[in-house]
Amino acid sequence: MTVGQRPLGVAVLGLGNVGTEVVRILHESADDLAARIGAPLELRGIGVRRVAPDRGVPVDLLTEDIEGLSARDDVDIVVELMGPVEPARRAILTALRHGKSVVTANKALLAQSTGELSDAAESAHVDLYFEAAVAGAIPVIRPLTQSLAGDRVLRVAGIVNGTTNYILSAMAETGASYTDALADASALGYAEADPTADVEGYDAAAKAAILASIAFHTPVRADDVYREGITKVSADDVKSAHALGCAIKLLSICERITDADGSERVSARVHPALVPLTHPLASVNGAFNAVVVEAAAAGRLMFYGQGAGGAPTASAVMGDVVMAARNRVQGGRAPRESKYAQLPIAPIGVVPTRYYVSLHVSDRPGVLSTVAAEFARHEVSIAEVRQEGMVDEDGQRIGARIAVLTHRATDAALSETVAALKDLDVVSTVASVLRMEGTEE
Amino acid sequence: MTVGQRPLGVAVLGLGNVGTEVVRILHESADDLAARIGAPLELRGIGVRRVAPDRGVPVDLLTEDIEGLSARDDVDIVVELMGPVEPARRAILTALRHGKSVVTANKALLAQSTGELSDAAESAHVDLYFEAAVAGAIPVIRPLTQSLAGDRVLRVAGIVNGTTNYILSAMAETGASYTDALADASALGYAEADPTADVEGYDAAAKAAILASIAFHTPVRADDVYREGITKVSADDVKSAHALGCAIKLLSICERITDADGSERVSARVHPALVPLTHPLASVNGAFNAVVVEAAAAGRLMFYGQGAGGAPTASAVMGDVVMAARNRVQGGRAPRESKYAQLPIAPIGVVPTRYYVSLHVSDRPGVLSTVAAEFARHEVSIAEVRQEGMVDEDGQRIGARIAVLTHRATDAALSETVAALKDLDVVSTVASVLRMEGTEE
Repeated sequence: MTVGQRPLGVAVLGLGNVGTEVVRILHESADDLAARIGAPLELRGIGVRRVAPDRGVPVDLLTEDIEGLSARDDVDIVVELMGPVEPARRAILTALRHGKSVVTANKALLAQSTGELSDAAESAHVDLYFEAAVAGAIPVIRPLTQSLAGDRVLRVAGIVNGTTNYILSAMAETGASYTDALADASALGYAEADPTADVEGYDAAAKAAILASIAFHTPVRADDVYREGITKVSADDVKSAHALGCAIKLLSICERITDADGSERVSARVHPALVPLTHPLASVNGAFNAVVVEAAAAGRLMFYGQGAGGAPTASAVMGDVVMAARNRVQGGRAPRESKYAQLPIAPIGVVPTRYYVSLHVSDRPGVLSTVAAEFARHEVSIAEVRQEGMVDEDGQRIGARIAVLTHRATDAALSETVAALKDLDVVSTVASVLRMEGTEE
Repeated sequence: MTVGQRPLGVAVLGLGNVGTEVVRILHESADDLAARIGAPLELRGIGVRRVAPDRGVPVDLLTEDIEGLSARDDVDIVVELMGPVEPARRAILTALRHGKSVVTANKALLAQSTGELSDAAESAHVDLYFEAAVAGAIPVIRPLTQSLAGDRVLRVAGIVNGTTNYILSAMAETGASYTDALADASALGYAEADPTADVEGYDAAAKAAILASIAFHTPVRADDVYREGITKVSADDVKSAHALGCAIKLLSICERITDADGSERVSARVHPALVPLTHPLASVNGAFNAVVVEAAAAGRLMFYGQGAGGAPTASAVMGDVVMAARNRVQGGRAPRESKYAQLPIAPIGVVPTRYYVSLHVSDRPGVLSTVAAEFARHEVSIAEVRQEGMVDEDGQRIGARIAVLTHRATDAALSETVAALKDLDVVSTVASVLRMEGTEE
């Protein structure tokens, strides 16, 4: 192992929670890492926005010259943990063009990529790894690109955003409103000061794009992903879901849609959904993540663990660093990005799912039949319906609530049904429309 | 991709459930596989014990000359699915020495290996993959060797034998005895005619050895694994477990044991254990498998799916075939076996776990205190104790049952306690001794 004797230089870009843990592991596990790789790793520098003496690392390792560090001759592997898109993109391209292998956890960048990064890695014959970009410590990228490389993935459905899962879990546990649960999550550090990226589903959509791309060998960008956040999920919705034996979860779903002529399209979407309590995703609570993969031969697989946080994310990053380092010592490459299938993206309108629709209606005979007729007219088949009286604070009857659970229908058919329901005299409000996942019908 | 134009030759050894599925996937998914690899795969031959025209494949693909097929010039990848140890070992060595990459699902062979196979792969600079050897379709080997390569694995605990899990699940559901549940499992094809390898824990022990080896970078063989099967688990045990809020599962457990002086050993063991119903492994039922990995940075990860069966196992095999093929097209190698840590194996006597001990005792005052004193004398701390009267068929009081749940104690201390309890006049029988896993205390 003559080649192995030469130390490999590592540059870390970004010193937040994850970067700090990566630097700690590089230091504390140096001997183990060297034994596993066949060469020692040496930390050459840490790129930061502002060099300061109180960062908990030797100050002479810090530099504000991100580009310079990424191109340094004695650096073999660049670990990008800065987020968001720029200056990360520029730094990664610089590193790749200078022949460095790159490990990144930057889901926003990867999900808007048009293949620029993978092309640059391919041209330079170096590795681009990104296991930490989806679901933190949970191995998801590697199982999809390697373990299932000989199978046919049909569907990937996951809870991949810890903040929203924490909020929805809290709503289910305490009966709190969305606003109160969000406030608690912020106070406890589970939600950021500006929670938009999480609660509006942007983060989950970026991850869905990455998952769909690798699962279906097709370029899918964040913009291709249909996206609904959790801001409209009410305490009533959570209660109704529970009455139906379901939890409400924000799911990232990627699936193959087979059209009538046998041709295939890819659907990628993020939205809250009712999930039966018996489904493995229903019991994934708090800040945990889980991803369920369905493949033709493997059947249903589930991966579960901590989807965020400094140490868990650093675990995924370090796995990639060791693999990139081994490849440099022993020769070899990560599987390159595979986009051969080039399947078209299916618009949300054609994607069939089950729906839960809750209506406030007049409390008089014949209403249920009128409502049911409207579903039938749009060819949306009803699986289950439930009607109950609504009373005001004084116990006076003020109308009724009708909850409908449909069989599978397209988004387009359901939207037309809902629009028509709103026009009915007997319907005062369409209180909520939620998809249901994880059942066969 | 000039190199990629040349087709890669595949030889499949064995045409049972898994082999048949592998041949099917090679045929039906040929285009997808070629696109993912960068070269087409061509099936050169199938090694079988007896060539016959009714095997569902073109008869001219079949050969009884396993060695010849493994060494053929136009074969690049040999897929060994014959089991058990011989003639598989010889065929794999022949293949490796002739420069073929090898994919195998042969856990028995791998778990008795002294490094012979990995050394042969290393010398020939070819790949030896074995994802399918543990937990069927569930990616476990790759996450441990790659995703967690930069982390420090503390513990791997899994349900990795479907037959015993099916039997234990049935006992819990129906209250059946072990014998009846086994008979049902055999009738339904979940247990083999001779179920010894499953019910006595040999299969789970082979898998524990493989998991321990890769998790702790230390050679562990099946013989190093402490092993107890499920044949002594009674319907009463299952009932008592349920009363304690637990399920009984056959677990394969590998963990680091840190001694008082800070030195480390590896413990690998297979035994039935009480698992709290709130633990993720408790709800893994029927023929499903699950593996929980605990690592220093990643925290707790769980992998769940189908652990056996032709198609699920073929999925794992084909993932390895694609990776081995990609490496031949693009250059590169699988991570080689890493045994640098060379930790000693801890004997079961020093391994601390919690215990559940059930005793039949005389029904008179002072018995509980006598029993408790015996635990104390051996420094086994009691966490919970429960006493109830036992009656015969006529409702006559015939003694009492005492169930004790201990805090963590070593196997040695517990064995001494049990021996001493048996000598007590007031104890008529030690009805069962079961370990408890999945709790902190």
